[in-house]
Amino acid sequence: MRARTVREVGEFGLLERLTRMVNRAGLGAPAPESPFPLLVGIGDDAAVWRSGSALEVCTTDTMVEGVHFTRETTPWEDVGWKVMVANLSDVAAMGARPLYALVTLGLSPETPVADVEAVYQGMIQCCREYATHIVGGDIVASPVTFVTVALNGVAWGEPLLRSLVKAGDLLAVTGSLGGSRGGLEVMLRHPEVEEVGERLREAHRRPRPRLDEARVLVEEGVRAAIDVSDGLVADVSRMALASGLAARLEADRVPVDAALSSVFRDEALELALTSGEEYHLVYAAPPAVMERTLARLPGARMIGRGEPGRPGHVRVEGREGREVHSSRRGWDHFRPWSS
Amino acid sequence: MRARTVREVGEFGLLERLTRMVNRAGLGAPAPESPFPLLVGIGDDAAVWRSGSALEVCTTDTMVEGVHFTRETTPWEDVGWKVMVANLSDVAAMGARPLYALVTLGLSPETPVADVEAVYQGMIQCCREYATHIVGGDIVASPVTFVTVALNGVAWGEPLLRSLVKAGDLLAVTGSLGGSRGGLEVMLRHPEVEEVGERLREAHRRPRPRLDEARVLVEEGVRAAIDVSDGLVADVSRMALASGLAARLEADRVPVDAALSSVFRDEALELALTSGEEYHLVYAAPPAVMERTLARLPGARMIGRGEPGRPGHVRVEGREGREVHSSRRGWDHFRPWSS
Repeated sequence: MRARTVREVGEFGLLERLTRMVNRAGLGAPAPESPFPLLVGIGDDAAVWRSGSALEVCTTDTMVEGVHFTRETTPWEDVGWKVMVANLSDVAAMGARPLYALVTLGLSPETPVADVEAVYQGMIQCCREYATHIVGGDIVASPVTFVTVALNGVAWGEPLLRSLVKAGDLLAVTGSLGGSRGGLEVMLRHPEVEEVGERLREAHRRPRPRLDEARVLVEEGVRAAIDVSDGLVADVSRMALASGLAARLEADRVPVDAALSSVFRDEALELALTSGEEYHLVYAAPPAVMERTLARLPGARMIGRGEPGRPGHVRVEGREGREVHSSRRGWDHFRPWSS
Repeated sequence: MRARTVREVGEFGLLERLTRMVNRAGLGAPAPESPFPLLVGIGDDAAVWRSGSALEVCTTDTMVEGVHFTRETTPWEDVGWKVMVANLSDVAAMGARPLYALVTLGLSPETPVADVEAVYQGMIQCCREYATHIVGGDIVASPVTFVTVALNGVAWGEPLLRSLVKAGDLLAVTGSLGGSRGGLEVMLRHPEVEEVGERLREAHRRPRPRLDEARVLVEEGVRAAIDVSDGLVADVSRMALASGLAARLEADRVPVDAALSSVFRDEALELALTSGEEYHLVYAAPPAVMERTLARLPGARMIGRGEPGRPGHVRVEGREGREVHSSRRGWDHFRPWSS
């Protein structure tokens, strides 16, 4: 049966169809005769090609008003910061550092110039902090505001791929989770929470890409990583799926943001498992490599392992092996409530 | 006085403000210590950086439904073709060839999957014809449909820049103009025009990037070019402005599309001077270089020259030097009727 709308086939179904079309046309395959031979095409956090003696990465990420943010919860400066971080985090997840960004703005003619400047101010703050240049872009009229960034970077060494988890590899995350979703919940439901709430709001509005951590992972020989952009379970599921494996996470080991725990108590774990825009890195490595990374990354925690099983299945176990959460597949932007 | 909305400051005013912000923050400057030193940042058809022994270019271009196309005049396949050509043409205008595209789709959940596949079909046809790989991208929910492409390419030699026109350089265009606008006019106002109309509709729906011509220009030592994306006069104005010069065009020399002339007669010249999405290249060169290019490009025509004067001013002269058209500045997406 042929599904009819994008909602019906979902983000993953649509992506699979389009990827198949590209591959059938021979446009997704490596082009070894190219001056820049392609190493990684559609399906990871960024594309990768060889460029002289370096490996170059390129990614793109978009924020649309009313979909990825609202004016109520995200001031314009933070929109600029966040869209840049989404791209920087993709670059980090490939084991690379950022170089050059192209910025596309879709704007209604009635947009106040001050708002556009605020978006740029946020992007500029972020670019200064993470050594990224803004080298071009496009401004177009649009009935809905959107910001797209395309970001080129250069890998520290061998790129980190989603698809390189091996059965028996340990899984770790570079820091505690849930702050971003906690900040949103505080803004929408608990405006009365003040001091701790401010820390959570900050986590939501000013997330950070883990570029330094990415470099450590590459230096220690890690080969598989993804960033937590759609939620820990969802992104581990994607990584497992790309590697043809299942994954098991231990709930007690998942590092939960302290501010989140203090406000949301019993709900905190579930929020930490599903919070998007966290931008910590999840990575996989054999025990010896894992040990070296944990020694160098004080915030990182081992949270589970990759194992044979239904590809993409993630089982989150509580005490005595009880399942507390599970996901077949990741977050779907067109079917947000179905996963 | 501080203008208030994007419409009030216009596309150019906004671009100037944002570029100033980026430059003040030191983010637009070359980064010579980079593994990929930046040669061209904001302000040309694409950014350029050195990548090993090659020069890499990167550009991005977007089409928004209701702004750049409507379902009535542009079938979905043609939307895909056209957005890819807009990017390929930017690459051509830099004297480069395309390599890798990242595609962002903004889609309502209610979009029929068949429409999305048609957009991709059009992009794939175009990529096959012009040796471009689709290596990644992003799919996001959006209340308005838009397609953004970011395209990386590699220069044939020294890049073609907007800013390198010299006073006394001759100006030429690689082929006849006006077909794209003619096709739109036929669809909107003259559906009764059949055979010739079909040629014009084709020009509107399936424009072509001038990648082969770009290579010839580089081989012959041309240094300055731009593509006709917003209209001949508008784009010559941009090129002149970037070069700190004025330009003079001879109306009789401007090659007007034959089908356009046969349908629109007296209006044809004006349409040819202002028609966007033509994607022929306008280039500047001293007479000896110009002669060599014209010998190798049968469709190309010398149309005028760069000269001292108010930067960006373009004077189009008819018989006996009478001014038939003039532009201070180019097409403005936020003030379409003011130029």
